[in-house]
Amino acid sequence: MALFTKRYHAPGTLPGTLAAPVCEVPPRIALVEFGPDTYEERLIASPAECLSPEECRAYLDSPSITWIHVEGCVTPDTLQHLGGLFGLHPLALEDVLNTGQRTKLESYEGQLFLVMHLPAQNRAGVEAQQVSFFLGHNYLISFHDGETDPFEPVRGRLRRRAGRLRDRGADYLLYGLVDLIVDQGFPLLEDYGEQIESIEEALLDDPDKALLNHIHRLRRELLLLRRLIWPQSEVLRQLLHEDYPSVQDQTKVFLRDCHDHALHILDLLESYREMTTVMLEAYLSSASNRLNEAMRVLTVIATLFMPLTFIVGVYGMNFSVNESSPWAMPELRWAYGYPVVWGVMVLIGIAMLFYFKRRKWF
Amino acid sequence: MALFTKRYHAPGTLPGTLAAPVCEVPPRIALVEFGPDTYEERLIASPAECLSPEECRAYLDSPSITWIHVEGCVTPDTLQHLGGLFGLHPLALEDVLNTGQRTKLESYEGQLFLVMHLPAQNRAGVEAQQVSFFLGHNYLISFHDGETDPFEPVRGRLRRRAGRLRDRGADYLLYGLVDLIVDQGFPLLEDYGEQIESIEEALLDDPDKALLNHIHRLRRELLLLRRLIWPQSEVLRQLLHEDYPSVQDQTKVFLRDCHDHALHILDLLESYREMTTVMLEAYLSSASNRLNEAMRVLTVIATLFMPLTFIVGVYGMNFSVNESSPWAMPELRWAYGYPVVWGVMVLIGIAMLFYFKRRKWF
Amino acid sequence: MALFTKRYHAPGTLPGTLAAPVCEVPPRIALVEFGPDTYEERLIASPAECLSPEECRAYLDSPSITWIHVEGCVTPDTLQHLGGLFGLHPLALEDVLNTGQRTKLESYEGQLFLVMHLPAQNRAGVEAQQVSFFLGHNYLISFHDGETDPFEPVRGRLRRRAGRLRDRGADYLLYGLVDLIVDQGFPLLEDYGEQIESIEEALLDDPDKALLNHIHRLRRELLLLRRLIWPQSEVLRQLLHEDYPSVQDQTKVFLRDCHDHALHILDLLESYREMTTVMLEAYLSSASNRLNEAMRVLTVIATLFMPLTFIVGVYGMNFSVNESSPWAMPELRWAYGYPVVWGVMVLIGIAMLFYFKRRKWF
Amino acid sequence: MALFTKRYHAPGTLPGTLAAPVCEVPPRIALVEFGPDTYEERLIASPAECLSPEECRAYLDSPSITWIHVEGCVTPDTLQHLGGLFGLHPLALEDVLNTGQRTKLESYEGQLFLVMHLPAQNRAGVEAQQVSFFLGHNYLISFHDGETDPFEPVRGRLRRRAGRLRDRGADYLLYGLVDLIVDQGFPLLEDYGEQIESIEEALLDDPDKALLNHIHRLRRELLLLRRLIWPQSEVLRQLLHEDYPSVQDQTKVFLRDCHDHALHILDLLESYREMTTVMLEAYLSSASNRLNEAMRVLTVIATLFMPLTFIVGVYGMNFSVNESSPWAMPELRWAYGYPVVWGVMVLIGIAMLFYFKRRKWF
Amino acid sequence: MALFTKRYHAPGTLPGTLAAPVCEVPPRIALVEFGPDTYEERLIASPAECLSPEECRAYLDSPSITWIHVEGCVTPDTLQHLGGLFGLHPLALEDVLNTGQRTKLESYEGQLFLVMHLPAQNRAGVEAQQVSFFLGHNYLISFHDGETDPFEPVRGRLRRRAGRLRDRGADYLLYGLVDLIVDQGFPLLEDYGEQIESIEEALLDDPDKALLNHIHRLRRELLLLRRLIWPQSEVLRQLLHEDYPSVQDQTKVFLRDCHDHALHILDLLESYREMTTVMLEAYLSSASNRLNEAMRVLTVIATLFMPLTFIVGVYGMNFSVNESSPWAMPELRWAYGYPVVWGVMVLIGIAMLFYFKRRKWF
Repeated sequence: MALFTKRYHAPGTLPGTLAAPVCEVPPRIALVEFGPDTYEERLIASPAECLSPEECRAYLDSPSITWIHVEGCVTPDTLQHLGGLFGLHPLALEDVLNTGQRTKLESYEGQLFLVMHLPAQNRAGVEAQQVSFFLGHNYLISFHDGETDPFEPVRGRLRRRAGRLRDRGADYLLYGLVDLIVDQGFPLLEDYGEQIESIEEALLDDPDKALLNHIHRLRRELLLLRRLIWPQSEVLRQLLHEDYPSVQDQTKVFLRDCHDHALHILDLLESYREMTTVMLEAYLSSASNRLNEAMRVLTVIATLFMPLTFIVGVYGMNFSVNESSPWAMPELRWAYGYPVVWGVMVLIGIAMLFYFKRRKWF
Repeated sequence: MALFTKRYHAPGTLPGTLAAPVCEVPPRIALVEFGPDTYEERLIASPAECLSPEECRAYLDSPSITWIHVEGCVTPDTLQHLGGLFGLHPLALEDVLNTGQRTKLESYEGQLFLVMHLPAQNRAGVEAQQVSFFLGHNYLISFHDGETDPFEPVRGRLRRRAGRLRDRGADYLLYGLVDLIVDQGFPLLEDYGEQIESIEEALLDDPDKALLNHIHRLRRELLLLRRLIWPQSEVLRQLLHEDYPSVQDQTKVFLRDCHDHALHILDLLESYREMTTVMLEAYLSSASNRLNEAMRVLTVIATLFMPLTFIVGVYGMNFSVNESSPWAMPELRWAYGYPVVWGVMVLIGIAMLFYFKRRKWF
Repeated sequence: MALFTKRYHAPGTLPGTLAAPVCEVPPRIALVEFGPDTYEERLIASPAECLSPEECRAYLDSPSITWIHVEGCVTPDTLQHLGGLFGLHPLALEDVLNTGQRTKLESYEGQLFLVMHLPAQNRAGVEAQQVSFFLGHNYLISFHDGETDPFEPVRGRLRRRAGRLRDRGADYLLYGLVDLIVDQGFPLLEDYGEQIESIEEALLDDPDKALLNHIHRLRRELLLLRRLIWPQSEVLRQLLHEDYPSVQDQTKVFLRDCHDHALHILDLLESYREMTTVMLEAYLSSASNRLNEAMRVLTVIATLFMPLTFIVGVYGMNFSVNESSPWAMPELRWAYGYPVVWGVMVLIGIAMLFYFKRRKWF
Repeated sequence: MALFTKRYHAPGTLPGTLAAPVCEVPPRIALVEFGPDTYEERLIASPAECLSPEECRAYLDSPSITWIHVEGCVTPDTLQHLGGLFGLHPLALEDVLNTGQRTKLESYEGQLFLVMHLPAQNRAGVEAQQVSFFLGHNYLISFHDGETDPFEPVRGRLRRRAGRLRDRGADYLLYGLVDLIVDQGFPLLEDYGEQIESIEEALLDDPDKALLNHIHRLRRELLLLRRLIWPQSEVLRQLLHEDYPSVQDQTKVFLRDCHDHALHILDLLESYREMTTVMLEAYLSSASNRLNEAMRVLTVIATLFMPLTFIVGVYGMNFSVNESSPWAMPELRWAYGYPVVWGVMVLIGIAMLFYFKRRKWF
Repeated sequence: MALFTKRYHAPGTLPGTLAAPVCEVPPRIALVEFGPDTYEERLIASPAECLSPEECRAYLDSPSITWIHVEGCVTPDTLQHLGGLFGLHPLALEDVLNTGQRTKLESYEGQLFLVMHLPAQNRAGVEAQQVSFFLGHNYLISFHDGETDPFEPVRGRLRRRAGRLRDRGADYLLYGLVDLIVDQGFPLLEDYGEQIESIEEALLDDPDKALLNHIHRLRRELLLLRRLIWPQSEVLRQLLHEDYPSVQDQTKVFLRDCHDHALHILDLLESYREMTTVMLEAYLSSASNRLNEAMRVLTVIATLFMPLTFIVGVYGMNFSVNESSPWAMPELRWAYGYPVVWGVMVLIGIAMLFYFKRRKWF
């Protein structure tokens, strides 16, 4: 998960500038028009292909709901065309293009602009893909910057007429999509929960360096994840408690449920973050324990053998070459000198062991 | 205590879906109907068994209070039947089924939906069992996902006509049940308090690894417990300060008492959490003390004996084999060479001990 | 100071139950009746002794102020009698009996119920004694669970007609008692402040284990003390800013002064807590310093003597027994072998000392 | 980045005093007058040079917008002249002169006074240059204390008539300049993000002292940067939500975008700060790991060789010089003494290795 | 800076008691009477000396402003006399006498009572001297408990008619004095900033124990300083945003500037506090680095020389005294035994060095 993902223009650039990112693959646009009894779906490559202003006006004037979903790397052209058709604000369009925005909800004269982030697990870890929404009274435009379309299940429900989706307005559709994004948090956090529990077990066993790196990687990811998810619950609270003309009251009970999910995910995230702190402390205090243990072994060994090695060193001195002096290591010539030295050394050893025992060093 | 306990549907599932968990034992349903002078209790296996819509309507229209308690694993059928009879909201029913919800209070058109958690001590530690309530103006439906019915004492009080329970409405019954749940925190925290005090005493003595693991286990459990209990006081505050038609004013003075208990438990929990931090620091600083102690012993021993061992090593060298050279270790041939070496070594030893004494190393 | 001091009934017990604690000594009840010109004081053993309902009614109807103070272990009988006479709420009575409550202020239909904690220093440290008050428009009932009556100075002022106590209402009397409780914090914190300053001085000197235990004991006590004192300032704020019929405006300027004292104590407590953190860090970094110092001495000694001991070991080898081989330690037979070895060793020693000097190891 | 950058007068100085800093280079003043169809630009050295009060009045009365930008070290004379012409408040002028102010927004009777900080990267790190603005209904006066004029891009857009700048009022111009200042944060944070990621990689590898210093330098800079940037988002929020006569509603949608950028930068900054904490912990736990590793190697080596060295020391003793005593190291005279000693030593060595293996020490 | 500086009466003392502190030097009272065109100044030893109640009334009734400044240890007599003349509240007088109060602002029926703290640097560090103010509609009474009068500069400005002081009311005078107190923070913090920067440089160099003590002393002082300064900005905010009859609107723009200074000082203080944390961490991680370094040197030396010392010890054994056995150290008798042993030792040494190199131990 990268630290800095925001695309930005050089400071001083004209606000609302749409600089062209290089798109290798053109965006795929799914145009869905539905009502309680009608459902029409078209896949187009560019909005200019089939959305002339007149057609658009017709769509907007009809009572049915229009949902345009732009999947993949979006070009300035597409944005400008859509912006012209639906009257989208240039600053909002700039935010769609410059991905890596904060999660946020902004109101532009009756139109709601919402930026969310879809957590997606890839090989390198978790990646946050920006999803942008424009909500009008009977249309919803969504942008997703990823490889696969995450909203296919919702389109499936629309096609099959499952649930209330076809009978409600564009705001309920927005709820459906936002709910899908928020609920992605549960499998993600379940996975993190399992990782944490496996680390906890390993910590009781034998903590090694790989474990430490795992804890640090988790801390980093949870930190970045919180940066994404914390504002999501805030945005949902705002959607719930402020009055926007394009959000109906009957949708709010569902948004409240969605907000509750976001809060639950945030709660879990916070607990996990604190848990990694607890685990790190556990690792460090366990390492400190092991250091103490090694230190004591070393001290016991050194304290036991250093004096003994000194004693045997004493009797390894060669003063006895001076055979004439009575002061030249007479002990060496004593009949019981050798057993006496051993006795002294054994006594010293036993005394040391008693001392260590009393200080509870082993 | 597991980190992640929420049951959830795959993201994108229809909101309000009731997927069937596998229940080994069917739920036990206790149907209680009471008024100041009447008390009737029935145990049934399924709501369909005896609650036809007409019967239900009769119950709802009568002035007496109906309390349905569903104990154990609840099936989607049971939920749907009850939901149909009492007009329970599908999103709330989903939350009853998908246990592991956040503690919360939601209002669905006059009906209150409340999720609480009953802390239950089992072999593996503390477990939180979800309890869900639906409160209407003259009925209360409660669900508990556990093995034994925790509300038997309340039913006993109803039977015996103890206290005011029979004379008050469904909201006072709800208070009685919630109070029972909240008060479970006291014995739990008393137990934790005793654990902490026993650790504190052991810390003064001889801290070992088991103690450290105990501290970490406590930190983990207190962390998870706070996640459960913190929103309980919040929910009670909400019940107390917002106006719900099904909660009467005369019940509020009791809810205030219950809220006070929840705050007290939260206070204790926070103190305990800070106390575990203090204990962990005490453990670590005590370990650091012991490391220092071992280190000093080692340094004193090594500094004392290394120079002496070097000296005796010097006179263990065999240069004296060259008996002709006057430079070949003449000390060895001196008459008082050996006592002089001992004298030098004793002086060095005493000097070192003085030095260590002055630096307060022992 | 115990962690868990709350008395509680088993969960599910009837709210308002007054279970009998075993009182070894009956409570001492001081009944005071005063007005600007009258003062009457009686000591009784039980409220039933002299407070018949009629008498009570007479007291309540007279313009003079009635203050009943119950000192020591209170029995359920006493409580029930008083509760009946003055219309005290059962939930509040339960809180008087089950000491260890949170500090709190509750209003029961015109009556104020206030729980405070008097910090009292005993042999084992600081103990918090619960003081409960019921304030009506012309009476005050107070309960204190301790050995000596802390309110004797106030009764003395009443007797002597010192200050405004006799001219004001029951609320001013409550202020006098609460002010006395709050002001107990100053000598307590002065004592803690002195302890902290003595530890700070000792830290500069020679930190030992007893000091560490002292720091940890302080941290624990300050933590528990804050749990008591933090809600006191909150309760006083509430008394000050909310309108209660039994608290007159002219008393509020005094309560504001008392609130200010509570805030001051809280401020000091917070500073002390942070100070203990600073001291603990100072202790630990000082211990880390000493470890480093010992480590360097050890490393210098070992690095100095190990190579030298190796060299003298080399010339202690017995290859010279093979007198025929020219390769068998010819150095031993050189005329200047011994001085050359000494020269080499001195050079090595000097080189090492230079190296350590450059790395600033001593 | 210096800790204390505020210029201040001695306490007790008259408020509004403009003491003369020594300016090596006089300020460069750019006077721009523009409207939808007019654009005039003049560079002058002193406001007295061409701005007589009459001229000024003419400027102020004309519908066109006047923008005076003072670049570089500003003299009290210039300030007083401008202050007199435009009625700027002495306290605000003092703040322009005494750079190192807090970021703030103040309203002086219809005039807005805004202090921002432009982060500029120089050799020694990041430096914050104070930019001050006075906004009237049709004029903007800006001061920048740096070497190069950062607002040249905006002047370029004015000249080229790019965007809406020429058609809007002085408040939109202020937005343009503030947006430029805020957006400077993005390249800065992108650079910090890259530094952090490079440190993270190095941490997995081989953490050394330079890395540690780098982490500490980052922590320091992020800390100081937050002190600058946190109030910027606050000031923009104030500009957005409070009603100032000189800020039009149509500009607010742009200020909201700018506020959103400031929040984004603050978010990033906070994440970075937490990330440096995580990195520091990673460094320290990795160092603790390495200490443990070295300690174990040392303990294994010492525990292995100390007993063996003792044994060979024993048989280096010279008791055998007493050839007559049967107790004088008879082992030395045994035929298989030497191989037996080797055998014993090898056995001891193998036993030790097994012991270490079992304790997982290598 | 002492931890506990509050003077207090024994708990239970009559509120408003003025107990006599022992004053070695009587207070010096400066009585100033001024208007736009008049200025009169008298130094008196006691208010009774020249302020009879009639005189006082005359002063209060005249349109000119009266400023009474009491410098030094104030006696209860002086306080009572002034209290009687100006109608000062006993609780406020008690706070003037019992120095060591919290910084606070209290309103007593139209009169404002303000307690501030003047930080003064003395030999032992920083000391906080209490300054108390009573503000009426045309008088200001100030008390300062120190050795020199800090307000002489303001009196000088009054005498010289510098600035607006003579033309404005008592509230503007109060602003002038409070501004002087608040601005004392800037030189103080500049000094702390320099101390911190000097420590930062020393940390890169050679951290020693004195540095550590310096960091801890700074942390302690910043902690206590924040306790003083934090409420100052709060009190100024209150003075600014609440409506007091004795504070005019035209003074508020100046108080806002003063409040801004207080916030700036608080900001700096907070940054400094965080900076000391960063420095402490830097110190500790640097110490941990040095420990690691020493440990590695020790381990390398020990691992290198212990096996070699063992080998030379082996050939120092005296088994060769048994000349008849072919198993008695035959190596000693080999022609090339000595060079072979050297060769083996050199090989072992080189292998170890390679091993250490590969593990990056030096």
